[in-house]
Amino acid sequence: MLDRLRAVFDLYGFDPLETSTIEYADALGKFLPDEDRPNEGVFAFQDDDEQWLALRYDLTAPLARYVAENYDALPKPFRRYQTGPVWRNEKPGPGRFRQFTQCDADIVGAPSTAADAEMCMLAADSLEALGIARGEYAIRVSNRKVLDGVLEAAGLTGGDEARRMTVMRAIDKFDRLGRDGVAMLLGGGRKDESGDFTKGAGLTPEEIDAVLRFVESGLDDEAESRESVLAGWRAAVGSSEIGLEGVAELEEIDKLLSAADYGSDRITFSSWIVRGLGYYTGPVLEAELLFEIADEKGRPIRFGSVGSGGRYDGLVERFKGMRVPATGFSVGVSRLQAALAALGREPGGETNAPVVVLALEAGEMASYQAIVRELRAAGIRAEIYFGGAGMRAQLKYADKREAPVAVIVGEDERLAGQITLKDLKLGAEMSGEIEDNEEWRKSQPAQVTVPRASLVEEVQAILDRQAAQ
Amino acid sequence: MLDRLRAVFDLYGFDPLETSTIEYADALGKFLPDEDRPNEGVFAFQDDDEQWLALRYDLTAPLARYVAENYDALPKPFRRYQTGPVWRNEKPGPGRFRQFTQCDADIVGAPSTAADAEMCMLAADSLEALGIARGEYAIRVSNRKVLDGVLEAAGLTGGDEARRMTVMRAIDKFDRLGRDGVAMLLGGGRKDESGDFTKGAGLTPEEIDAVLRFVESGLDDEAESRESVLAGWRAAVGSSEIGLEGVAELEEIDKLLSAADYGSDRITFSSWIVRGLGYYTGPVLEAELLFEIADEKGRPIRFGSVGSGGRYDGLVERFKGMRVPATGFSVGVSRLQAALAALGREPGGETNAPVVVLALEAGEMASYQAIVRELRAAGIRAEIYFGGAGMRAQLKYADKREAPVAVIVGEDERLAGQITLKDLKLGAEMSGEIEDNEEWRKSQPAQVTVPRASLVEEVQAILDRQAAQ
Repeated sequence: MLDRLRAVFDLYGFDPLETSTIEYADALGKFLPDEDRPNEGVFAFQDDDEQWLALRYDLTAPLARYVAENYDALPKPFRRYQTGPVWRNEKPGPGRFRQFTQCDADIVGAPSTAADAEMCMLAADSLEALGIARGEYAIRVSNRKVLDGVLEAAGLTGGDEARRMTVMRAIDKFDRLGRDGVAMLLGGGRKDESGDFTKGAGLTPEEIDAVLRFVESGLDDEAESRESVLAGWRAAVGSSEIGLEGVAELEEIDKLLSAADYGSDRITFSSWIVRGLGYYTGPVLEAELLFEIADEKGRPIRFGSVGSGGRYDGLVERFKGMRVPATGFSVGVSRLQAALAALGREPGGETNAPVVVLALEAGEMASYQAIVRELRAAGIRAEIYFGGAGMRAQLKYADKREAPVAVIVGEDERLAGQITLKDLKLGAEMSGEIEDNEEWRKSQPAQVTVPRASLVEEVQAILDRQAAQ
Repeated sequence: MLDRLRAVFDLYGFDPLETSTIEYADALGKFLPDEDRPNEGVFAFQDDDEQWLALRYDLTAPLARYVAENYDALPKPFRRYQTGPVWRNEKPGPGRFRQFTQCDADIVGAPSTAADAEMCMLAADSLEALGIARGEYAIRVSNRKVLDGVLEAAGLTGGDEARRMTVMRAIDKFDRLGRDGVAMLLGGGRKDESGDFTKGAGLTPEEIDAVLRFVESGLDDEAESRESVLAGWRAAVGSSEIGLEGVAELEEIDKLLSAADYGSDRITFSSWIVRGLGYYTGPVLEAELLFEIADEKGRPIRFGSVGSGGRYDGLVERFKGMRVPATGFSVGVSRLQAALAALGREPGGETNAPVVVLALEAGEMASYQAIVRELRAAGIRAEIYFGGAGMRAQLKYADKREAPVAVIVGEDERLAGQITLKDLKLGAEMSGEIEDNEEWRKSQPAQVTVPRASLVEEVQAILDRQAAQ
């Protein structure tokens, strides 16, 4: 699976980068863990010099440090992908791991909106390379600047951070509470079933309308064209300069996507992405699987997000004291793997199991070794049975290994200068078709005895025959 | 580099296994870190349930846990290889890292000495797959049982652990102290230049002779045949049963290696391996690079060990309460990488840099995108310049990327339905040969302008021409 992702990233011109899994805690952008709870969110520990170290919790913070350290030597823009484990110190649970694998592609030093558009295409191509068909996924795109514009149009400027957060939290609850519930949270407040009262953002009815116009455009993203979503968003931002800038960026992205034939069946503009809007500074994307799988209790659930990304121009600011434009996409490999496994569609499942050479005569190890060496030299995976059991158990071992062929050289074969090759796939089929395979057994036997000298040729012939079936 | 190792392990029938990088500290076989120094040797931390967790410090302990947990479901023998980072909480220094990569192959459940022989061949094949030639490395093999036999012959049985350790430490100093110095440490003791006295093991002169016979046979392993080393070791173990068993195992290994054409120019029997003998339970091997490289101060040093392994039948005993025969080999990837880098011989250095499409007209991003998409669809790595600079800087960027070709479409080309391809390798050569390339420039120009429709074909032609040079 990682090989397939790497192949896509490679074609797009991204170079692999590896960084240490351990960073100084302050480089991760978390506050120093306090004495009592050193493991808040990250796995952290002190070294002998009392410096706090931590396991990376994503691949973005290490990239930022790397870019800051090597800024002058790097080509700019700098395209890198990285794949590897990251750690979160949280209680593990179903679908939540303490260690999981991410695969990130980023372009640092690229101010162009075309780079954001390419990230959207990369996201779509990555999922399709893993065998996820069109219609089974959506790449949902939004823009932080559009939300900022909506909030600005609603009278909430940068200074009023608490109220902005209230509005964003309200928007995030649209799927649960619906239009009316969110309107209450944007206005005076809302009392839930249990009677608990949540204070609202205190917007006027006109302001609430603008926010809802933003949310409701791009709500049913699978049915809506990107142009029509944009029309709604343009109305929602009113005359906000930052909002109009965001809409213009999305227009540009739409144009590039359409020219490259990525329609709204693959990449949509969507108001569902709210969380990411707090973190990113421009266009934001999220990759979602649309099909349902069964949860632990057998109930169908939508699998949801398997990747996200966006423009984050503040990436290296903390280290370099200057803003460097950057955009990226991160694949949640472990989640994707879980989704594909649940569907029985793990890629790379083609087994290439080794040929197993039985070890029947203790004194003949050197001749078995010669057999595997010849096979390996011909590029065929091969191994000797090195356990201590008899022939029956050795054939069982070969079955457990899913070996395509067993090479059998007993005393009879040895003295005659021959080897016996057992086609284990054919053997398995035959034992399931005992009724009517009399004829067939005669014409295509599961076992042949051939001269020792034609080992490689005959094994290859069986492998070819199996591959052709 | 890892790809090449994986290819070898794969051919030998090993299957890849991944395990978590974090284990419960007690599963790592270390005592629980104490409150004051939780990081003794490993990176350890407590989770919310106050359980001690630690980053794995090798790939063997996680294998043992995995095998113990999945024992019944696994094919036996179980062949797996694993590659990944391991951590040691030590002061980092030259050649010593806190995080480094290992690549391990193990066969669990294989009592056969033939499995140990195959590990020796695997070690040799692995180094050669990385471009290390015969004569540049040695796989040195010994056997814990032979040393045990020597110690038994010298009157030191299992109970006398402290004296055994004194003897092993003395043997380990042979290269520094020579025959006489070691003889003193084996006997009454030795005073060094500073006047410090080290107490000896108190062996009799006959016992000392037996130990030295063991050490001196297999000392100059590059010149000595495996048979002659074994003859010396056979004499050194006297009538010790365990010692004779060890010699017999090595005889068997020698026979298999010779039959498979691994001579003592590649795999030797050697008395240099002492440290490993304390840990393993049978045959032991160590891979060493024989060439010298310059250290930080420019002095030539032998690079030394880049891998080790052996039989360790106690692998899963701690978990399962039963002894399971196992043998393995571990490649020190980070060390090997450092060695090859010092020699300028890193494998996989063939650059496959992307074709760079210049972005000259801001309004034409969609057409540049179409160009990279066509190239990628043909399997050619390609990228658009997404930075904010002009043509000169864009060509410089392409050079920095080591791009083979730059695709240039300015207004002229666009209006004429053409593209210009600049062969950057040829261009670099030409700028170094300004004197006499007048003629040559005419016949093989570094820059061609061709119809837009023949993009892929013409780029491929340049790549083919570059590959042929």
